[in-house]
Amino acid sequence: MKFGISARSSSKEVMELVNQTVKFLEPEHEVLLEPEIAKKIGRKGTDVDNMRADIIIAIGGDGTVLRALQHTKAPVFAVNTGSLGFLTEVSPDEMFYALERIVQKDYIIDERIKLKTVMNGERLFDSTNEVVIHTSQIAKIRHFQIFIDDELVDSVRADGIIVATPTGSTCYAMSVGSPILVPGLSAFVIVPIAPFKLSARPMVISSESRIEIKLYEPRKNCTVVLDGQYNVKMTPKDSLVISISEEKAKFVRFGQDFYRKIKEKFGI
Amino acid sequence: MKFGISARSSSKEVMELVNQTVKFLEPEHEVLLEPEIAKKIGRKGTDVDNMRADIIIAIGGDGTVLRALQHTKAPVFAVNTGSLGFLTEVSPDEMFYALERIVQKDYIIDERIKLKTVMNGERLFDSTNEVVIHTSQIAKIRHFQIFIDDELVDSVRADGIIVATPTGSTCYAMSVGSPILVPGLSAFVIVPIAPFKLSARPMVISSESRIEIKLYEPRKNCTVVLDGQYNVKMTPKDSLVISISEEKAKFVRFGQDFYRKIKEKFGI
Amino acid sequence: MKFGISARSSSKEVMELVNQTVKFLEPEHEVLLEPEIAKKIGRKGTDVDNMRADIIIAIGGDGTVLRALQHTKAPVFAVNTGSLGFLTEVSPDEMFYALERIVQKDYIIDERIKLKTVMNGERLFDSTNEVVIHTSQIAKIRHFQIFIDDELVDSVRADGIIVATPTGSTCYAMSVGSPILVPGLSAFVIVPIAPFKLSARPMVISSESRIEIKLYEPRKNCTVVLDGQYNVKMTPKDSLVISISEEKAKFVRFGQDFYRKIKEKFGI
Amino acid sequence: MKFGISARSSSKEVMELVNQTVKFLEPEHEVLLEPEIAKKIGRKGTDVDNMRADIIIAIGGDGTVLRALQHTKAPVFAVNTGSLGFLTEVSPDEMFYALERIVQKDYIIDERIKLKTVMNGERLFDSTNEVVIHTSQIAKIRHFQIFIDDELVDSVRADGIIVATPTGSTCYAMSVGSPILVPGLSAFVIVPIAPFKLSARPMVISSESRIEIKLYEPRKNCTVVLDGQYNVKMTPKDSLVISISEEKAKFVRFGQDFYRKIKEKFGI
Repeated sequence: MKFGISARSSSKEVMELVNQTVKFLEPEHEVLLEPEIAKKIGRKGTDVDNMRADIIIAIGGDGTVLRALQHTKAPVFAVNTGSLGFLTEVSPDEMFYALERIVQKDYIIDERIKLKTVMNGERLFDSTNEVVIHTSQIAKIRHFQIFIDDELVDSVRADGIIVATPTGSTCYAMSVGSPILVPGLSAFVIVPIAPFKLSARPMVISSESRIEIKLYEPRKNCTVVLDGQYNVKMTPKDSLVISISEEKAKFVRFGQDFYRKIKEKFGI
Repeated sequence: MKFGISARSSSKEVMELVNQTVKFLEPEHEVLLEPEIAKKIGRKGTDVDNMRADIIIAIGGDGTVLRALQHTKAPVFAVNTGSLGFLTEVSPDEMFYALERIVQKDYIIDERIKLKTVMNGERLFDSTNEVVIHTSQIAKIRHFQIFIDDELVDSVRADGIIVATPTGSTCYAMSVGSPILVPGLSAFVIVPIAPFKLSARPMVISSESRIEIKLYEPRKNCTVVLDGQYNVKMTPKDSLVISISEEKAKFVRFGQDFYRKIKEKFGI
Repeated sequence: MKFGISARSSSKEVMELVNQTVKFLEPEHEVLLEPEIAKKIGRKGTDVDNMRADIIIAIGGDGTVLRALQHTKAPVFAVNTGSLGFLTEVSPDEMFYALERIVQKDYIIDERIKLKTVMNGERLFDSTNEVVIHTSQIAKIRHFQIFIDDELVDSVRADGIIVATPTGSTCYAMSVGSPILVPGLSAFVIVPIAPFKLSARPMVISSESRIEIKLYEPRKNCTVVLDGQYNVKMTPKDSLVISISEEKAKFVRFGQDFYRKIKEKFGI
Repeated sequence: MKFGISARSSSKEVMELVNQTVKFLEPEHEVLLEPEIAKKIGRKGTDVDNMRADIIIAIGGDGTVLRALQHTKAPVFAVNTGSLGFLTEVSPDEMFYALERIVQKDYIIDERIKLKTVMNGERLFDSTNEVVIHTSQIAKIRHFQIFIDDELVDSVRADGIIVATPTGSTCYAMSVGSPILVPGLSAFVIVPIAPFKLSARPMVISSESRIEIKLYEPRKNCTVVLDGQYNVKMTPKDSLVISISEEKAKFVRFGQDFYRKIKEKFGI
């Protein structure tokens, strides 16, 4: 098999895991490394976009996983070295057991829907968790208009708007009041951040819907954040359209354990 | 066409509307009346279950509409004489304009998914809005276990549990924190009432899922309430299974105006 | 010293603790028992109201403590045999250590404000946690009017209204969205239960305010529940006035540990 | 009397009101203008800090009022030309009637408690509404520790923390879930913004308490925003202490109408 390793940090702990992984897989399997970590061990690096690997091994926290998913269509096997770790599958001490199962092809692929974001006709990175549109100026609200399938469904002053997938419904969206959308549900949730309207509620819509967000006021900018990894400015003149992507986020899993995980993380 | 009229109240206002409706439709169309209102004007009554009408005209509030939907598979045309009126389509002064359109066949049928409730193997009424399982003893919490597709997904002490359709997500469920599920979404929402657990959140699941609610403690009973219209006791020995019904709730409409209505009612 | 023991349950575990407590305190100290538990060990019982003890030992859950506080002005030392136990001070295995400190006078009294409830001019039991006014008919909302110092401040359709002390703000009130009011704060919180109004919010008012709750609709009754222990019917004709009591709830404590406790119970 | 006029915008509408106010008050009364608006009509301007006026007339939205209150101890009479206007007292067409009452001394002073903020020993502006500590990097959470009277009461990952007065409890704090604290209550409320912890709840504390907020992680900065008007950077090395100010915010009012206003604004 052909593996790629993605890791943002080059901390001692991460590098140790990278080394052990390489040693475990080579020479039977081919292993490519991201430039930053490759350099540390005197190898030539490859960007995730160009890895063409069967499986990407992401070592780090949820951020590392989300960034890897923005740059590959391959399944991602996620090893958690961070503290939150909702997307990651195993801890470092379970890693070799898991790698053994992977090379034995004893794993499943958990496919999740992603969000496609198009700004002024140009497609940005897909999002596994959420698209956030947030005031660029802290503590200064903006006026958003939300259109679903070309119909104006809400007009709200708020710090921002989150459009989340089921996967993202237990991440940032949850911290501003999103319900849990179980994995596999064909739906997205739209949640305002700090809405200046007491009646504001999260709205769950079909994943087939086309969502358009407009900024209502002149001269007031926002920042669009994709999965917490990629930022782009948005002005009231910009068009922002969000819909389901034809691509899926693919996670390497060894069992379906959504409810166990959510109970562990949140005590639900 | 064959019409049935359902009205729970026999208030002066309601009887006036009933009389006007009969006068408007007869003799060209056949009109059947529920026993209570039929008696008031010296006619023979028919239960909604036996009307076999093309359209049921429900005159009253949301409760009248929900009760009619429990007893018929025919489309319901709802005239609002109450104050809340989220399910009703027209106000009394729009009624004749609407009836004219109905007899001209100039209307649409808005179909909504319903919940099927099976208790100890026996099927109860379907619910258009929600199934509530509520402690029978006020202000005394119960311990509920929620199973989705035979997996235990939550164990929570609360006053009760609501399982709601998209239609019901803007009614009772909303008052305990449900998100809005847009009509047409193939999903249900499960929301606890007054959960004694800070991490409790509404959960949105596929409408294809099978929900089972169990009472955990011996000797502590609950009341199951279907659409606020029908009550039945539930003990820890009872099995309660909720899933999608093969029947739909059918509303006579003259336009798709969900977002307008929700904005009017809630200022969203 | 003179002790009274209050326990609602006569479970084996509770009776064992009662026996051990009596053995520990007698004959040096006088010990009175509630009738139900006294009978179990062949002694003459005394109602809590008539104990005139220096300290009441409540053995059980929060309910036992709250009921004891309704019947005594003495400090209550609470031993937790239940599962929730927010008001209780020690677990059974810490009990003798704590009793030793009590007879050495090595403890503090934690005083908390209570709610006085007056219905139609007649004073009911004081409440340490909360007064709940709840629809008597499950899942049927009522229309409440809330007056503060004779001014109408809210008119809301809901399942009920909770008026809570700081002590009660982390109990039932919290499960319907109350903020935490730290102990010692001279304030009460008013929270609607399942309000049919998206803009409803908890309201924190001075403990010097006079709260009056009115039922707006004819022929629709409620149940008033004091600390989950005492119920009384309320009709729209009844007057219900809630204000601060001149009495305090007194807890025997061995340290100020509100924040530790709240962190343990709720993971805050 | 001596009046000062504060207005941030120099829009045509605002300048028209400024001109009319000057004409109405002079020459009987002395009128000073802020530099920006003074220049527009060829007069010499005075900063609000140096006006020493009996009353400051603030023309604009809530932001204008809050900024004026940061720079004066005099009572503020607020004329609303904006859209939200929760702090403002009258609309432009009520202005002259109100000014007439002011010069007749027919008004009341509504005093509200303010927050004093001290950073690294240096006192910043007082806040009438709230102090916000917010991640400087959008959509990247920070780890906050909250100390009350030197006790660690919460440790939370969030976008930010709001400490609000009763006046501020219906502004920004409310949009992230604050309860309403009625005016006159001697309390503050602490509310996290987008907490990554499901059990997070607003906490209401005595206004006599000393609040300290610490950033837990190295190399991650925040922005402190006072009443939405004044920003300052905060690093994990900075000490931030918030307590009650000895100064009050003083509003010129013509009646006590908190509950009416809150009902109008929020439909409560």
